[in-house]
Amino acid sequence: MARPGEFELIERYFRPLAGDPGAVSLTDDAAVYNPPHGEEVVLKADLIAEHIHFFPDDPPRSIAHKALRVNLSDLAAKGATPVGYLLSLALKADWTEDWIAGFASGLAADQERYGVTLFGGDTSRAAGGTVVSVAAFGRAPVGSIVRRAGAKPGDIAFVSGTIGDAGLGLRVRLGTIDAMPAGKSADHLLDRYLHPQPRVELAPVIRRFATASLDVSDGLVGDFAHICKQSGVGGEIDADAVPLSAGARALVASDPTALVTVLTGGEDFEILATVSASDADAFAAAAAAAGVPVTPIGRVVDGSGPPVVLGRDGPIRLGQFGYTHF
Amino acid sequence: MARPGEFELIERYFRPLAGDPGAVSLTDDAAVYNPPHGEEVVLKADLIAEHIHFFPDDPPRSIAHKALRVNLSDLAAKGATPVGYLLSLALKADWTEDWIAGFASGLAADQERYGVTLFGGDTSRAAGGTVVSVAAFGRAPVGSIVRRAGAKPGDIAFVSGTIGDAGLGLRVRLGTIDAMPAGKSADHLLDRYLHPQPRVELAPVIRRFATASLDVSDGLVGDFAHICKQSGVGGEIDADAVPLSAGARALVASDPTALVTVLTGGEDFEILATVSASDADAFAAAAAAAGVPVTPIGRVVDGSGPPVVLGRDGPIRLGQFGYTHF
Repeated sequence: MARPGEFELIERYFRPLAGDPGAVSLTDDAAVYNPPHGEEVVLKADLIAEHIHFFPDDPPRSIAHKALRVNLSDLAAKGATPVGYLLSLALKADWTEDWIAGFASGLAADQERYGVTLFGGDTSRAAGGTVVSVAAFGRAPVGSIVRRAGAKPGDIAFVSGTIGDAGLGLRVRLGTIDAMPAGKSADHLLDRYLHPQPRVELAPVIRRFATASLDVSDGLVGDFAHICKQSGVGGEIDADAVPLSAGARALVASDPTALVTVLTGGEDFEILATVSASDADAFAAAAAAAGVPVTPIGRVVDGSGPPVVLGRDGPIRLGQFGYTHF
Repeated sequence: MARPGEFELIERYFRPLAGDPGAVSLTDDAAVYNPPHGEEVVLKADLIAEHIHFFPDDPPRSIAHKALRVNLSDLAAKGATPVGYLLSLALKADWTEDWIAGFASGLAADQERYGVTLFGGDTSRAAGGTVVSVAAFGRAPVGSIVRRAGAKPGDIAFVSGTIGDAGLGLRVRLGTIDAMPAGKSADHLLDRYLHPQPRVELAPVIRRFATASLDVSDGLVGDFAHICKQSGVGGEIDADAVPLSAGARALVASDPTALVTVLTGGEDFEILATVSASDADAFAAAAAAAGVPVTPIGRVVDGSGPPVVLGRDGPIRLGQFGYTHF
């Protein structure tokens, strides 16, 4: 069956996603965006590549979710309100229209969910696997976004949701971890790998309370280390305090390598934020009111270097810090 | 020799390119940009992929130029002043540090030349060829950018520079066209394929005079057709009026297929703009004052559909309209 050309693809699948007047229905060469008075534009770009960040047989809807959400997660961690995105799609030789249709339906669902629209982009071929490149932008009051720098000794470190699910899900998928303990399903872990949940609802709470913040994409320890480096501080993580899902808890109990994955595995797309001790209760309450559970997992201390992970018997040495797609 | 990791690459090669305070020296997860009062942000994303838009043995400096300039060309055609860009780089398995160094030096040279800086992005691996994805942004007074829509019957169609060089250069490189006529070099054509020259200096002139405008990336006829479609008009191109370089002129004289390539070959990255007849002289004078030669090549007429190409003996039928990387 003949595949549609680039213009037909845009017409059929992408134009319906371009709801903002500034996108000119994708009938032009560039989009415009004018932030509200007193606000500035917050910009983030991140791509995902087949075989590297996703598997060839992942559902195209899920690939669309991942491509968009890894960017929205960064905007949320900075305290920005998401607005829109540009999409550059390089399609492998044997792409199908069905794949595009599924991919576009994933984008449409996320646009509804997160309040963003497509502003532009381009479609071309790729010589190897498919590459999905997203540049997302949001808005925030001028000078208000929360940086990696800003954490101060005495601050409490919080994470949203649970940590380690995506990293463990990837290991289950790759077969590099023991089977799930009897009676425990890996479904939640696999889903967390495939479907990051950017904490967009937390953005205003972050902006109000956090002294430093980022999303956990390189692994909890590695990302805490980013905050430490940029803030000129040290950190401590209480290993027992790190919030785990039931599946992750079962794996950590049965496989000694699972804890390392939890702490360093990456792709959590939860938020790690530091908050002054006096704001900690108010922060947790505001996060809960926004529908996002947050858990204190450690603290900011004087010092430098990556955070120390404290177990029941003292510091835990980890073989590696952080996950990289590189 | 060990290759540097992602963080070292950023530190060594990309951080020096991030000159704007809003980029936070690439030490954070997102950048900010606040357009001047009364201006809005103009956004464009386009990627180039190895084997599709560039050759594996192209110099990395040239690949950097192309990746950035195809985006700056769109901003210029809309009348926007370029500001900055996000870069997402997916590197093939056997990338080298030398390649990165050359690539970054190409970006540095273009930043100086076009007055833009790097605001963010990411680096990862690619399963196939290298993919370079750029999202560029500029600024323009609110509501002032020039669209594809807006051309009116009676308007004069102008192009900047010369047309067809890049398309012919690609054919020379692929060996799908006869050798250059004796005494003529293909160097200029090859250079034009490798090094687009975005007409950034023309942006304010476009904003002041053009009724419609875009950059010629899909081929002159195909891009004029885009203007016709969005403006609800027809068009005419006088084939003899299309400005050619000496090399293109020699090929057109010796090979009957060369004219088709000139008119439909794509990747010119010149500007096609329509201007009211009463503004035509002032437009040409302002463009010349900005250092960019422009040539009238036809006109906007009542009607619809792609523009008619007029030769000495009447309309010329072309086998295809427009070039696509798809």
